[in-house]
Amino acid sequence: MSANSIESIEASARAVLERCDILAGHSEEPDRLTRRYGTPPMAQVNDAVAGWMRAAGMAVRRDNIGNLISRYEASEPGAGTFLLGSHLDTVRDAGRYDGPLGVLVALAAVERLHARGQRLPFALELLAFADEEGVRYHSGYLGSSVYAGRFRSDTLGTMDDDGIPLAAAIRACGGDPDALAGDARSPGDLLGYCEVHIEQGPVLEARDLPVGVVSSIQGQSRMTLSFTGAAGHAGTVPVSMRRDALSAASEFVLAVEAEARGTDGLVATVGQLAVEPGASNVIPGRAILSLDMRHPDDAIRQAACAQLRARAEEIGRARRVTLEWQTLGQSRSVSCDARLSALLARAVAESGYPILTLPSGAGHDGVMLSRLTGIAMLFVRCKGGVSHNPAESVTQEDVAVALAVLERFLSLVAADRGEKP
Amino acid sequence: MSANSIESIEASARAVLERCDILAGHSEEPDRLTRRYGTPPMAQVNDAVAGWMRAAGMAVRRDNIGNLISRYEASEPGAGTFLLGSHLDTVRDAGRYDGPLGVLVALAAVERLHARGQRLPFALELLAFADEEGVRYHSGYLGSSVYAGRFRSDTLGTMDDDGIPLAAAIRACGGDPDALAGDARSPGDLLGYCEVHIEQGPVLEARDLPVGVVSSIQGQSRMTLSFTGAAGHAGTVPVSMRRDALSAASEFVLAVEAEARGTDGLVATVGQLAVEPGASNVIPGRAILSLDMRHPDDAIRQAACAQLRARAEEIGRARRVTLEWQTLGQSRSVSCDARLSALLARAVAESGYPILTLPSGAGHDGVMLSRLTGIAMLFVRCKGGVSHNPAESVTQEDVAVALAVLERFLSLVAADRGEKP
Repeated sequence: MSANSIESIEASARAVLERCDILAGHSEEPDRLTRRYGTPPMAQVNDAVAGWMRAAGMAVRRDNIGNLISRYEASEPGAGTFLLGSHLDTVRDAGRYDGPLGVLVALAAVERLHARGQRLPFALELLAFADEEGVRYHSGYLGSSVYAGRFRSDTLGTMDDDGIPLAAAIRACGGDPDALAGDARSPGDLLGYCEVHIEQGPVLEARDLPVGVVSSIQGQSRMTLSFTGAAGHAGTVPVSMRRDALSAASEFVLAVEAEARGTDGLVATVGQLAVEPGASNVIPGRAILSLDMRHPDDAIRQAACAQLRARAEEIGRARRVTLEWQTLGQSRSVSCDARLSALLARAVAESGYPILTLPSGAGHDGVMLSRLTGIAMLFVRCKGGVSHNPAESVTQEDVAVALAVLERFLSLVAADRGEKP
Repeated sequence: MSANSIESIEASARAVLERCDILAGHSEEPDRLTRRYGTPPMAQVNDAVAGWMRAAGMAVRRDNIGNLISRYEASEPGAGTFLLGSHLDTVRDAGRYDGPLGVLVALAAVERLHARGQRLPFALELLAFADEEGVRYHSGYLGSSVYAGRFRSDTLGTMDDDGIPLAAAIRACGGDPDALAGDARSPGDLLGYCEVHIEQGPVLEARDLPVGVVSSIQGQSRMTLSFTGAAGHAGTVPVSMRRDALSAASEFVLAVEAEARGTDGLVATVGQLAVEPGASNVIPGRAILSLDMRHPDDAIRQAACAQLRARAEEIGRARRVTLEWQTLGQSRSVSCDARLSALLARAVAESGYPILTLPSGAGHDGVMLSRLTGIAMLFVRCKGGVSHNPAESVTQEDVAVALAVLERFLSLVAADRGEKP
């Protein structure tokens, strides 16, 4: 890579960050960034991004759910289509990189091809999904599920917090809720999907690496459980006669931590714990906990869940405290495509960086895209591992690395086509 | 005791329970029993109880804070005064026995003297305190502190939840807030104070005993503490890199339990635990806990507090989590009078029951009365140890035992006078 082309990458990375700032200016709330599905700021960012896409020589359309679908044509007609993308919606009080960074790095790669008058043998389809976070309708992947043909039409009646059904929200932003099935992408010509995303965790920072290759999107189990003992007066019930629900819950929280420490790759979290009646002078009669467990290997995750449930029952028996255990949801692990991930790793190495492969603990649009085609993901280091927070931060240098890796990856995919099985 | 007098005790016990039911009908709330200081139902129960006192041959007056003070004269003028009593206010959503039972058992004892035309050598002063629970002005013993000359006039400006200052509430029920100091009882003629109260704990029930003799009212320390670690994404932060505030708090909760189990007579309770940010998919960044510790021996309580604080600091250091520790309040242990308690124990034994001596984990008006004179307390078994709850329950048989013991105790005090040092 010449000195000139490095400078150009840096300029493109700066432009990516400037565009992240511009998009962050479009929010539902004046003092913080919140951009939910189907809201006016979503229409505004779609307009801005569609303009940049057109300027990069792409044809742009909008499907019925509100995804932007743009296309940069191939040099060899019939050589297939490679997908790039991420989402433009955000959580409440969000950072500016979770989602938009992936769209804008991919856009920069296309812009740079266009500026050089260059085309890849295959077409590029750049996707900007209308909803990944699922904040408004409490169900993620609204955008990518339509594209992947996995949208469940029984959710059209779901109401948002203002009582507006999803079908009405789709109509309000110009879509036809009855035509969603027709927006499913046919997989026939697809060569794969690659998404750039901030890590949302601290691993790359701890290893002092700008980027990492995602091995899989972890499967997840979400549980709620409660221990019910007996409330009582904090001054009058001897400790030996207590059935303290919080003591039982505390023993369980430490068991969760021990299980995760003892199981390679397992993350397990008790993020919520409520105590009833919750007065300083009353022994807790009930404790209600959440449990979130994730692992790249579904069997290991399920075994760990069973192990912890048995442990909770044991704690309950020993303390004469009743356990209730409810599984709220489970999702299976999604593996990234081995061939594409190997090419992405090679692109990292050829860009001069050590290869770190890591699982994604968070969900991504790739979960849906994996039903259509092979997926690959490149994580970008974020400061302190912080995400879903206004303090989300990435450096221009790291964005430049991500862009260089993505460009090299696309070249490797082009070169690899002949060898494709 | 003749068969007739036993029957009479049972009838008196039944009357006591009927009166508890009548008083429970006077509440601030239609569907549950709540009777805070200075409210209309307090005036109503004062009127009812004052009427019963007068019918029992007692002179009745009301002091400026609203305590009922009734007097049954002595057979020997100048032989001193023995105090009996408890309180008529309640907590929110209260049971009907915490407080009123003590007033009404003492009243029954006087009624039975009056019915027999009998007087004790000393006078009896029966006190029905206007506020012990402290619900309205968030400070207990409002009634008995005035009587004991321990009222702090700087609390007159304290507001209730409706913004009514204590001074205005005193005026509204006919008292003069500037005259409270004049209501302090002179201790010169006092022989002692005895209070009957439900146990509010499960010890008597577990030992299958109707009554117990209180050794002391335990000293108490109230603390609030927090562990501050780092919030993070439940899916993306490996367990080894976490600074989970809830794990630290859980370790501490179990340390509290272990300290109490390892220290005879210590009760220690974490009744509140709040987790921030408190989302199922976010690692807890902060956990805030209450700690309530009580022991009859102040030195042992203080040593246990110091021990737990050191343990909390150790947990914080090991987990790279910051500890904040704040002591909200402390009260010293109050010992019951040895001579009076020995007479009360003798009265229990002579009534045909084993003597069980136990500390009181809850505070009582006796804390204030102990500043004036020696105190004794008789606990009555309550179902399941439940108190501060509509399920509060006592049996007529146990109330009859308490009444018989109180009568015998007063005879023993009378007989013991000559031997008084």
